[in-house]
Formats: sequence, structure tokens, C-alpha cells
Amino acid sequence: MPSTTNKPARLRTAVCPGSFDPVTNGHVDVIERASRLFDRLIVAVGRNTAKAPVFTVEERLEHLRCTVGDLPGVEVTAFAGLLTDAVRQFGALAVVRGLRAVSDFEWEFQMALMNRELDPGCETVFLMPSARFSFVSSTMIREIARLRGDISAFVPEPVASALLERVRG
Amino acid sequence: MPSTTNKPARLRTAVCPGSFDPVTNGHVDVIERASRLFDRLIVAVGRNTAKAPVFTVEERLEHLRCTVGDLPGVEVTAFAGLLTDAVRQFGALAVVRGLRAVSDFEWEFQMALMNRELDPGCETVFLMPSARFSFVSSTMIREIARLRGDISAFVPEPVASALLERVRG
Amino acid sequence: MPSTTNKPARLRTAVCPGSFDPVTNGHVDVIERASRLFDRLIVAVGRNTAKAPVFTVEERLEHLRCTVGDLPGVEVTAFAGLLTDAVRQFGALAVVRGLRAVSDFEWEFQMALMNRELDPGCETVFLMPSARFSFVSSTMIREIARLRGDISAFVPEPVASALLERVRG
Amino acid sequence: MPSTTNKPARLRTAVCPGSFDPVTNGHVDVIERASRLFDRLIVAVGRNTAKAPVFTVEERLEHLRCTVGDLPGVEVTAFAGLLTDAVRQFGALAVVRGLRAVSDFEWEFQMALMNRELDPGCETVFLMPSARFSFVSSTMIREIARLRGDISAFVPEPVASALLERVRG
Amino acid sequence: MPSTTNKPARLRTAVCPGSFDPVTNGHVDVIERASRLFDRLIVAVGRNTAKAPVFTVEERLEHLRCTVGDLPGVEVTAFAGLLTDAVRQFGALAVVRGLRAVSDFEWEFQMALMNRELDPGCETVFLMPSARFSFVSSTMIREIARLRGDISAFVPEPVASALLERVRG
Amino acid sequence: MPSTTNKPARLRTAVCPGSFDPVTNGHVDVIERASRLFDRLIVAVGRNTAKAPVFTVEERLEHLRCTVGDLPGVEVTAFAGLLTDAVRQFGALAVVRGLRAVSDFEWEFQMALMNRELDPGCETVFLMPSARFSFVSSTMIREIARLRGDISAFVPEPVASALLERVRG
Repeated sequence: MPSTTNKPARLRTAVCPGSFDPVTNGHVDVIERASRLFDRLIVAVGRNTAKAPVFTVEERLEHLRCTVGDLPGVEVTAFAGLLTDAVRQFGALAVVRGLRAVSDFEWEFQMALMNRELDPGCETVFLMPSARFSFVSSTMIREIARLRGDISAFVPEPVASALLERVRG
Repeated sequence: MPSTTNKPARLRTAVCPGSFDPVTNGHVDVIERASRLFDRLIVAVGRNTAKAPVFTVEERLEHLRCTVGDLPGVEVTAFAGLLTDAVRQFGALAVVRGLRAVSDFEWEFQMALMNRELDPGCETVFLMPSARFSFVSSTMIREIARLRGDISAFVPEPVASALLERVRG
Repeated sequence: MPSTTNKPARLRTAVCPGSFDPVTNGHVDVIERASRLFDRLIVAVGRNTAKAPVFTVEERLEHLRCTVGDLPGVEVTAFAGLLTDAVRQFGALAVVRGLRAVSDFEWEFQMALMNRELDPGCETVFLMPSARFSFVSSTMIREIARLRGDISAFVPEPVASALLERVRG
Repeated sequence: MPSTTNKPARLRTAVCPGSFDPVTNGHVDVIERASRLFDRLIVAVGRNTAKAPVFTVEERLEHLRCTVGDLPGVEVTAFAGLLTDAVRQFGALAVVRGLRAVSDFEWEFQMALMNRELDPGCETVFLMPSARFSFVSSTMIREIARLRGDISAFVPEPVASALLERVRG
Repeated sequence: MPSTTNKPARLRTAVCPGSFDPVTNGHVDVIERASRLFDRLIVAVGRNTAKAPVFTVEERLEHLRCTVGDLPGVEVTAFAGLLTDAVRQFGALAVVRGLRAVSDFEWEFQMALMNRELDPGCETVFLMPSARFSFVSSTMIREIARLRGDISAFVPEPVASALLERVRG
Repeated sequence: MPSTTNKPARLRTAVCPGSFDPVTNGHVDVIERASRLFDRLIVAVGRNTAKAPVFTVEERLEHLRCTVGDLPGVEVTAFAGLLTDAVRQFGALAVVRGLRAVSDFEWEFQMALMNRELDPGCETVFLMPSARFSFVSSTMIREIARLRGDISAFVPEPVASALLERVRG
């Protein structure tokens, strides 16, 4: 059994970026896991996504704040422009991404390699959500809500109500 | 930009397990990346691998010590039995694994889910080695060495000499 | 060799859902295979697909009726809303899907797990189309027709003529 | 809503082949699902597997009988030689296989296409085990047992005791 | 060692099709590799792509001409309609495609099988770009440029300036 | 339409390496396709495979000679040691490999990247066998023959007889 080294503990920040449109229980699961690995975890909503969102960035920030905002060390914010620039500004040493399936894997790896190229100091860390959430994606939640299906088991409560209202309207 | 929270920095330990038969430059790359994310990184050689190894556990420990042993916070050791038991004994909060390809991905996920089931506190963190090492595996190094190919670009120097000697003998 | 049990034969219904825009020979192949496994097979065109279709739901129903409508036990219909609701209304015990490739596999598994979550009684059964049709998809057929290519080897005759007319118009 | 057709219900037999060394909860899950889809399900242990098994064919038959033997319509037996020959002798119209991951998928498809070539009447039906068992394989169970890990959550009780004894001996 | 056969060398033409919107260093890498394998390589920009491009076909032809136009045996042109028709008109015996990842692989294989069906004489040859470019795609370049990131390491110089101008405008 | 360039036709040699234990119709299909792309194609049986083969290298050479030996430009031989050394000795500019599935793809890419690293002049070209042979592998043929199945549809005639004899003996 190795003896403990005398390297001093250092405050470690990571960024968990996403569009979170909407926040799912899978997102919450990954954020909880990441918050245990880092001292400070910045959950960051990208402002520059091209497509027409269901919720505004401000609504999504609100949804994140009332579901993960109270976890120790977790902060919720938005960012514009390149992820690597945001990571540097946050003083973070890693980007956290959840990996569910092979298709995730390939796109995520392409992005992570590109981000490493844009900034060699930007490391990407992949976490695995609970198997219970392996099939939950924002895309699928939006589709089920559009068809008036019950999505309450897959998203935090405030999101469920808001999505129901949005679809009905 | 979010303000810094007052969660105190905590000493974080991770385990990087493997058979390391032999240690490759891809292993070294992942260990370096992981050592920047955690305060203490235990590189742990499994004693229980079934197949006939090229190097003994002691030789592999020696190869690891002289290549990554001086990285800040890195310790090199061996373990027997279940990985989850070793992780608990080390007081670690995460297992670190390098992911190179889709085939890695599936087996690694199966193992990570199993380990989480055996011990829910055992989180697995996946890192991506440099694209330069995406094709380097211990299996392929052993095969090239067997055919008397030059493996000096893919493994640390001490491993290259030792492997050359082993194959010639 | 096991002796036959005395469990009585029960009428078994399955649903084969899709957008069928257009029906391909791959669809016909899977429907034929499924019709041999179940007593009653409901081929169901989804009304709620978001994108602008080439053929109306009514045209697609017509195409299905004149190609698979005479297979024993096969019925052709449309459905709106959630698939799991339709499956329950049809009194079906399984959803049938064709799997051609890994990319199919991942999306199909995500949907099947979600449907099982929405209704635990909704089982999904995957069949493999003939290798001859492994490269035929509705998307590719539409693309070839748009470029005035000959699609007559990949779709049933009535669809070929209708698609030719639609593209020329 | 389509009206019921007058195709008479027919007794349908399927075969669920495997090496079952050992039987896992994932196997039991797939067998239960399959037994609801067919009138008669023959769970068939292959006698011709090349590798040294942990349990004899007779022990595995016993394990299957006391875990799934009482499910309605389920029979447990062994077979030698080609699967397609066994399927024909059993009077079955389908082979049932569980699919957990992409790596499963490719090998399973290769086998299913080969079996279809050897006997065009041999259809393969793929089912998805519960996500709870997606990481459970016989190989992994044997490995954990070898390391004296607790496998009682992943296999039926009689298998757990027998495996413990075998490993201790 | 086999003796040389007396089959006479024949002029061999291949086509490297794409949308090239924009040309990347990955494209240039694959074109260079292909030009060493064939006597004549026709780099062909498809005119029929449905989506709104960043650059016109003429601009893309210009970008290709000033980056790969001087490679021995390489010609740059555009084509309309089906690729298989263009291949026949060019008198080519193969289509060249770069493969980077599993997701590429599946779509590319589907297209190659379809092209073989449309014209059995149309062979598709897959090359592997340098690992350095495995994460570079036109889609990702457009996205980074849109966010004002520095894409000069991933595209030829003339493309970098043109893209910068286009995005600023 | 581009005008013909005046680059002179050059004799192009490629190597198609493998263990060919046994030669399958899928191998023959890929060799035929490759022979149309290159002036000279060297089909090369590796002498250094570790596992116990069904046929000796000399038997496999004989099987290849009587099935593809008469194709224009095709030569059959054996090689020892590293593939990249053999490629250089043959004066070849490319290695030809058949790709059937995603699992092939990953291992093949790893090898091709390694070979490129060992010799930057060693290009790998991937061809796609006919969809009819996508499920045929030497491993599966050996397994079916072991179970006394009929493999005559999947291998050339001389191989079928030899395999039958070998298994019976």
C-alpha cells in the first residue's frame, strides 16, 4: 500500500457545458457525480446554439439553479463563443461530459480532440450516467412532450411543469 | 462570470489500474493527464491477470516507477483481488481509464457499470489519450516486438530495451 | 428432445410502426418476416412526424396496402400520438423494428428502452432484413430520386412510379 | 383502428440457445420476455462449445431448470451440432437472442445471417434485456467469482452457491 | 519472392467526390494519398447538395484548385446528378473516400453499396486520413468559424481568409 | 469535363496480406476487386501467425493459387516478419484490406495507423466485399466445419473438400 505524498490539495474547477434544452435527470445525475470529483463545478449553458430552442437561456438557467444550484461547489451560468475560451476564463482545468452510447462517444471525442487542439490545456473528462438514464436525451424528451406523453419520470419537476405548459400553449 | 464558492479544497485520490504489459507511451500520456486532475494518483498493476505475461508484476512496477514515478502526486503499486476493493483501501474516489476507440468504449463501460454495482461509491472517469497514441496498445506492441519490429517510438526507453532482450532470449 | 407443453396457442398481435416515406423493399422484407412470427401484424404509419414528407399519410397507407396488405394477418393503418398508446389500443404485445446497422441499433435501443419505461408491457422485437437490403433506406431512396436516379430496384413498383411523378412535378 | 383478421392462432415455437456458463439474471430476463412472445420456448444449451467450461452441460441444464423451468411454455434441453439443425428438429420458427451492446450486435448479426444462409427458414429475433442487466455477462461473472467478488446480485441463487463452491474448491 | 507479371500498366482514373464546404486539411491529406495510388484523380464538387452552403460551387472549385490543383495527375471539377453517372463519364474505375470514424464508416458503406448496386462497375476505395486530422470535419470548421474561433490550423490558407471574411460579413 | 493530364501510367503494385485459414469466397471477392485497381497484386500469406492453423502455409498457398492464381496480375506468395518490411521488399505502394463490419474497422484502422507509423510510405486501402459475403469469416467457416455443417457455399471448391477431409480425420 503506497504512502501518501505531500502534494498539497489545490482548488480544482471543472466546466460542465451543454444546451440543457431541457435539463433531464440524466444531466442532474452527471452533474452530481462531477461535483464529487471537483471542488468547483460550473454548469454552463451555451448561448450560441443555432437551432430554435424550447426554453430561453434564462429559463434553462433557472431550471438548472433550482435543481442543481444547491449542490456543494456547483455554480450555474451561461457562456457565449467558444467553449475553450470560456474554460480559460473560468480558470477551469477540465470539461466534463456525460457519455451514454457509442454515437455519443464519436461526436464527443471529435469535439474533445478539437478543443485540445484549440487549447492544449483543455482536458475533457467523460463520466457515465446511471444506466437508468442511458436512454434519456433532451431530443427524446422534447419529442415525447410534443406527442403529449408523460415525461415526469425523466426530468426534474420544475422542468416537467414548464414543458407541459409550453407544449399546451 | 460566477463568483468562487467557499467549498474547501479536499485531497482527491484516483486509481489508474491496468496490466501494463508492457507500459506504452499511451499509458504514460493518460497518467500525466490524470495526475493534473487529482491530488494523488495511484497507478496500480493488477496481480490477478490470468494470461502468461511478458513481464513479471515486479518488472512492470519497475518500468512504471522509472517512467511516471516522479510525476507530482503519482504513486506506483500493485493490487490483488477486485478493483473495487483496492479502490476502497486506497481511499480513492475515482478510477481513471483511457479510452481510444469504440471497442474500448464498450468493454470499459461494461466494467465501469459492474464496478459501480459492486460499490456505488466507485466512480469511473474516462480520459482520451493524445491522437498520436490512439493506435498504440500493449497487445500490438507485443506482436510487433515478436516480429522483431522497432517499437522504440511507442514505449518508454527502459521498456524498449527490456522488451528487445526478452524477445531475443 | 423436449416434449410439447400444453400451453394453449394464443392470438398474438404485433405492431410494425414507421414513417414509410417511401415504403422500400427493405420494409416489405421485414414485414413479411414479422408476419410469419405473429398471428396479426399491424403496419402503422405515424401521423406525427415533424418533417415535410414526400407522400401524404394517405398515399403511404395506399402504398403499403397494395404491397403488403394481402399478406396473411397483416393490416395497414395510421396512428397519432405516442407509439406506446397505439400499441395498447391495438392490443399488441410487441413492436417490431428492422435493424440494419450499428447506427440504427443505438437509436432503436434508446427508443425501445424509453417505450419500455413509458409502458413496461411494451416489448420491442428486432428483426434483420435480408442482407440484400441492408443499404436501402427511405432517406437514400428520396435522395437518389431527387437526382433522377433509377430507384426501381429498391422500392415496390407502385412507389417507384409515384416517386418518379412526384420528383418530375 | 383495424378490425381483427380471421387468421387462426398457430402454436409458435422459438429456441433460445446459449452456453449459459453460468446462467445470469440477464439470461433469465430475456427468457421471461421471450416466453411471453411465443407459445413454446426451448432454452437450449450447446454441447459443442470448445472451451473448458466452469459447469458441465448437465449442471447448466439443472441451473436453467430450477430458475426458468417453471415459466409457462418454457422447456430446457441441450443440443449438439449446428444450431440450424436443432431449430429444424425442434420445429421452431425462430431463434431468440438478447442484444446488449454494439459488440454483441455485430457478432450476433454475422451469426444470424450465416444461420439464415444455412437454413432460409431460420429467423433470428433479437430482444433487449432490462437496462439493469446490460453490463452482466457470463464472462464477467466468472472473472468476478475468480477474484472472490460477490456475484449474488447478478445470477440466480442456485448458481451463486454453486459458483462459490466451484471457485473455493 | 514472386516474379513480376507481364500485365501492362494501364491509365487508372479515380474520382474523389465531396461537397468541400469548406475544403479542410483532412481533404487535402486524403487527396494527396489518393493521387499517389492512381494515375489520374478527379476531385469533383457535387452541385446537387440540398443545404445552403457557405461557399458557392465556384468558390469551392477555386479553393481546391489553389490547394491541390498542382498535384501530379489531379484535376478539379464539378458534377451534377448521380455520382455513378459522373464516375462513368469520367471513365473512372473507382471512387475514393476518406474514413475517419465508425459513424463515417456506416454511412459511407451504405452509399458505397448503393453505388455498387446502381453501377456494379463502380468500386469504392476507402483511405484513412492522417490521425492528426481525424477530428477535422467541414461541419466542425463552420461551427468554430461561426463562433469566431481560429481555424487556421485546420484548413488551407486561402480557405481560412475566405471563411473569416464570410463570417465577419 | 476535365481534360486528360499527361502523367504517364506507372506500374502499381499492392499487397493483400492475410492468414487465409481457410480462403473464403469473401477473400476471393476482395482479391478480384483489388486486381482491377492495381497492375500487380501480391496475395501474401503471413507465416508468423501464433495460433495453431487448420491448414499449413503451403496448403493455403495451394488453395489461393488454384482459386485466384490465374487472375490477371495476381501473384501468390508467403511472407515472414513485419508486413511493412514485406511491402517494401515487394516494391508495393499499398496494402489492401477488406472491411466488413464496425469491429473489423477498428482493428484494421489501428493496424493501418501502426503500419503507417512503422513506414510512412505504406498506405492502406480498404475495399468492401460484396454484401453477399459480409457475414463470411474464416473463424465462422472453421466453426461450422467443426460442427459438420455444409460450408460449400462460402469457400472455393478445393477448400471445401480439404476442410471436410481435415475435420473428418
